[in-house]
Amino acid sequence: MATYKAPLREISFVLNNVLKAERLSQLPGLEEATPETLGGLIEEAAKLIQNELAPLNAKSDQQGCVYSNHEVKVPDGFKEFWKSYSEAGWIGIMQSQEYGGAGLPYTLGKVIEELLCSANVAFALYPGLTQGCFEAIAANGTDEQKQTYLPKLATGEWSGTMCMTEPQAGSDLAAVKTKATPQADGSFLLEGSKIFITSGEHGMADNIIHFTLARLPDSPPGIKGLSTFVVPKYLVNADGSLGERNPVKAVSIEHKMGINGSCTCTMSFENAKGWMIGAPNTGIQNMFVMMNLARIMVGYQGLGQCELATQNAIAYALDRKQGKAFNGGDVIAHHPDVRRMLLQMKAVTEGARVLAYETALHVDASHHAADPAAREEAQDWVELATPLVKAYCTDSAVELGSMAIQVYGGHGFIKEHGIEQIVRDSKILCLYEGTNGIQAMDLVRRKLMLNGGRLPKRFFEAVRKDLADAPDFIAGPLATAVDDLESTTAWIQQSYKTSPDDGAFGCVDFLRAFSLTYLGWNWLRMTRAADATGDQLFADTKRATAQFFASRMLSQVPALLANVRQSAAPLMAFDVAGLQ
Amino acid sequence: MATYKAPLREISFVLNNVLKAERLSQLPGLEEATPETLGGLIEEAAKLIQNELAPLNAKSDQQGCVYSNHEVKVPDGFKEFWKSYSEAGWIGIMQSQEYGGAGLPYTLGKVIEELLCSANVAFALYPGLTQGCFEAIAANGTDEQKQTYLPKLATGEWSGTMCMTEPQAGSDLAAVKTKATPQADGSFLLEGSKIFITSGEHGMADNIIHFTLARLPDSPPGIKGLSTFVVPKYLVNADGSLGERNPVKAVSIEHKMGINGSCTCTMSFENAKGWMIGAPNTGIQNMFVMMNLARIMVGYQGLGQCELATQNAIAYALDRKQGKAFNGGDVIAHHPDVRRMLLQMKAVTEGARVLAYETALHVDASHHAADPAAREEAQDWVELATPLVKAYCTDSAVELGSMAIQVYGGHGFIKEHGIEQIVRDSKILCLYEGTNGIQAMDLVRRKLMLNGGRLPKRFFEAVRKDLADAPDFIAGPLATAVDDLESTTAWIQQSYKTSPDDGAFGCVDFLRAFSLTYLGWNWLRMTRAADATGDQLFADTKRATAQFFASRMLSQVPALLANVRQSAAPLMAFDVAGLQ
Repeated sequence: MATYKAPLREISFVLNNVLKAERLSQLPGLEEATPETLGGLIEEAAKLIQNELAPLNAKSDQQGCVYSNHEVKVPDGFKEFWKSYSEAGWIGIMQSQEYGGAGLPYTLGKVIEELLCSANVAFALYPGLTQGCFEAIAANGTDEQKQTYLPKLATGEWSGTMCMTEPQAGSDLAAVKTKATPQADGSFLLEGSKIFITSGEHGMADNIIHFTLARLPDSPPGIKGLSTFVVPKYLVNADGSLGERNPVKAVSIEHKMGINGSCTCTMSFENAKGWMIGAPNTGIQNMFVMMNLARIMVGYQGLGQCELATQNAIAYALDRKQGKAFNGGDVIAHHPDVRRMLLQMKAVTEGARVLAYETALHVDASHHAADPAAREEAQDWVELATPLVKAYCTDSAVELGSMAIQVYGGHGFIKEHGIEQIVRDSKILCLYEGTNGIQAMDLVRRKLMLNGGRLPKRFFEAVRKDLADAPDFIAGPLATAVDDLESTTAWIQQSYKTSPDDGAFGCVDFLRAFSLTYLGWNWLRMTRAADATGDQLFADTKRATAQFFASRMLSQVPALLANVRQSAAPLMAFDVAGLQ
Repeated sequence: MATYKAPLREISFVLNNVLKAERLSQLPGLEEATPETLGGLIEEAAKLIQNELAPLNAKSDQQGCVYSNHEVKVPDGFKEFWKSYSEAGWIGIMQSQEYGGAGLPYTLGKVIEELLCSANVAFALYPGLTQGCFEAIAANGTDEQKQTYLPKLATGEWSGTMCMTEPQAGSDLAAVKTKATPQADGSFLLEGSKIFITSGEHGMADNIIHFTLARLPDSPPGIKGLSTFVVPKYLVNADGSLGERNPVKAVSIEHKMGINGSCTCTMSFENAKGWMIGAPNTGIQNMFVMMNLARIMVGYQGLGQCELATQNAIAYALDRKQGKAFNGGDVIAHHPDVRRMLLQMKAVTEGARVLAYETALHVDASHHAADPAAREEAQDWVELATPLVKAYCTDSAVELGSMAIQVYGGHGFIKEHGIEQIVRDSKILCLYEGTNGIQAMDLVRRKLMLNGGRLPKRFFEAVRKDLADAPDFIAGPLATAVDDLESTTAWIQQSYKTSPDDGAFGCVDFLRAFSLTYLGWNWLRMTRAADATGDQLFADTKRATAQFFASRMLSQVPALLANVRQSAAPLMAFDVAGLQ
């Protein structure tokens, strides 16, 4: 059985030693968020999550969700854990105090997200979507709407969903057909069908608030004719009590490769009553407000699964005896190829954690910094890093899950060990909230181009500043990677004007190269910070892992980027009929 | 639902146009194996397999195997298909005519293996293990043993297993403990427990023959004290009829990530009667006779799954409409990143097929060529290529399965589409018959070293011979790759003497680089052969795929090899206690 122990020491090291999270408490409105307070809260959440949620992971995968007559039964223990978790205030931990939240940093919310997603990523979706729904209403709702829905979402008395996808409208939301017809009382009647709705029905909360994308009768076709609506399962009376059942119903659930504890519903809107959030035809903008946050959340799901894979593989490799290594060691961690896998898993997980946590800190700064220029700079970093966090952390989750199976050998394929579940649970992360290909397109097509290419420049400058006096083993490959990344960025910015297929064809390689370079910077910073701790074993392990990363992963960046700087013309020109 | 159509045109192209399989019928003993005969047989097998086996794939995954009281119930339809398949003579197709087989080429057997493994890889294990057991007895059994067991295995009236693994003895067979105590009548009583026994019990055949690794009482410890035994489920009377039930019993089955239709049994030998195959304490050599063949078989399982992933992803991408591409195309195959995935899948699957088929042709030549030097040369190729076929084709199956899910988007994660099953079914292929890390070790530690390094030299020479007049787009990267591979081979051969950890640490990257180079050669040969067909659409598609492979995959070889040529010392020296 896979086990999970929250990596508290590593979390504290990244937050405090590497990223200097003490600066959070210097931001207006976050004065309480001192390292001590955050550390205490993280420990408290970790205790609850690792003791009460993690043990449900394998069982909930086997049980899955059961649909019957518009109701969904979640796996044993989920309802109880939802209750303890929400009553302890964790769902609202990072939400505005004005609407029932604890007003603590987004960064804290994300650290807890990581813990939750290591322990049970299927469960984590229920609070995750509820937070997403909160943020969507908070961003564009009226005061009355906020007062009606947010406090209940913050406490987990109610839960939330995001209803976007339809059978013909997956990656392409322009094709959304769900109709919203205005009523005399200012409400709308929604009619249509939505698929892949996470947490659409589950019976853990008193009400479910569906944040829904739909089209007004007189709206233009395509992406500019969408609006957002809030559609509650039970209508809310003026006094806040629950009224009649709204005809928005789960009509089936999906049977999936993984995250079986998370219900994925087809929802039928049968003239369900809804209220518009934001202005007419601004639906896509309203969704995009929360889209970055939703994508970062999915990245943290990936990070959580990376950690789960890594810590279990290491524990197994330090315990399992099989053959004798050249160095005489008798546990498999001494076999060079197993050592290689452990170092790779550690390098990716710990490096990705710095990327993810730094992005969360930027989100906090983008909301709270007193200086508008600082807010703007932080927002630039968030925009740039979002596709990296989403795609790199989730691709890595699948990769590391698969690698953990290799470390376990044949045993990894057996359900009982709980390792194969990581691959199954993680694969969805590469698909929802925009496939990882779409993340890569977002990077090359939007993020490189925004504000005259200002975003990547900030990154190149920051890395170069840190290269001075860096140890050779990492300074060399990092400088090469950053130079190459910069010239490839210029190449994409240029070629996009005339040959958009070129940059698009190489976008996944480019995103990977960018992420590896970002992790190279992280490993440089981690090596320095670890040396400064004075803990020799810790510093030595960090250095060995950094050496592995620098010499065998960061070193792949130039070859990946050479792939990118090529014409795609011959590959786009041939007759696709020949493929079959 | 995933569908499967045997790629008959491609198979014929590879066999006849690229690899000149007409040379098979020039080998003594294989005169009947003309292209026409083989083509007819392949078509016939394809019809049976795609019409009757492929439709069972999803259902058998859901049903799985059910254990009860030492018996195992296989999924619906398996028993019936086993009957039609074996009665049509396919299990014995490549086995010796002397013992009930059809005496046709091993290559034909492998082509059919590919078809079987695309259609239902879980089912394919039952005939596959039966063939393996046949080969093991054929290689070292006495005439009487051969007469007793082989004809029934060839017809599928009986089936076979290989009983090696024990809980403490997975990759390290030296730790095998099962005891074989000699009896006065020349038989042995076997006592012990074996795990992960594929096809250990299933109810489809009248008898099950367990080819078993065990230890004699007076044998030396470790790998040199193992012997092989044949242990039938039912004892065989002198007249060939079945006698009493032998106490070798399934005591449980595993619940696995995939290949659910294949039973994976724990077998208990409770003083079960067995007969020694080969000489005492030669068990490991006896197993290794069949190990190459078993590893090639697993490679074909990977190839079959690559084909399944690729053809379904292409069909979906040519049908699914979602957004508009830059070139105006409205199916997703026109989106550059989707096109990239399709080309990668096609490049890997078709390139790997040439590697796998060429290896099978070498097996046939190694058995049948009149000239001993030709047999030796063919055997060298088999030895060298075996770890490539096993590891590259199976790593690719998981990779392409995962990529097919990306092409399907969220739908790929839903069981109903049958695509996620590819990842689940394929992952085991990277583990059994020696993990892919062990394949890579076999390559760097044995295959590069054998006979003074003669094996890789043959490969470098063959590739270089084909480089003359090759089109630039592929000649350039292929020449670079081969040069780099040669110098890295020399580096490994040298460093192994003093620092075995170095080559071992990079072995997986080395195997990948070697495989990519091999595939580069294949794409060069396919491009030429396709041009010669005069079919413009076919030739254009092959050329575009070759261009993709040359510019974006083959081009990664130098960076992979630079990884290999490094000291592993700092990565092997640190205190592993720090990993946790």
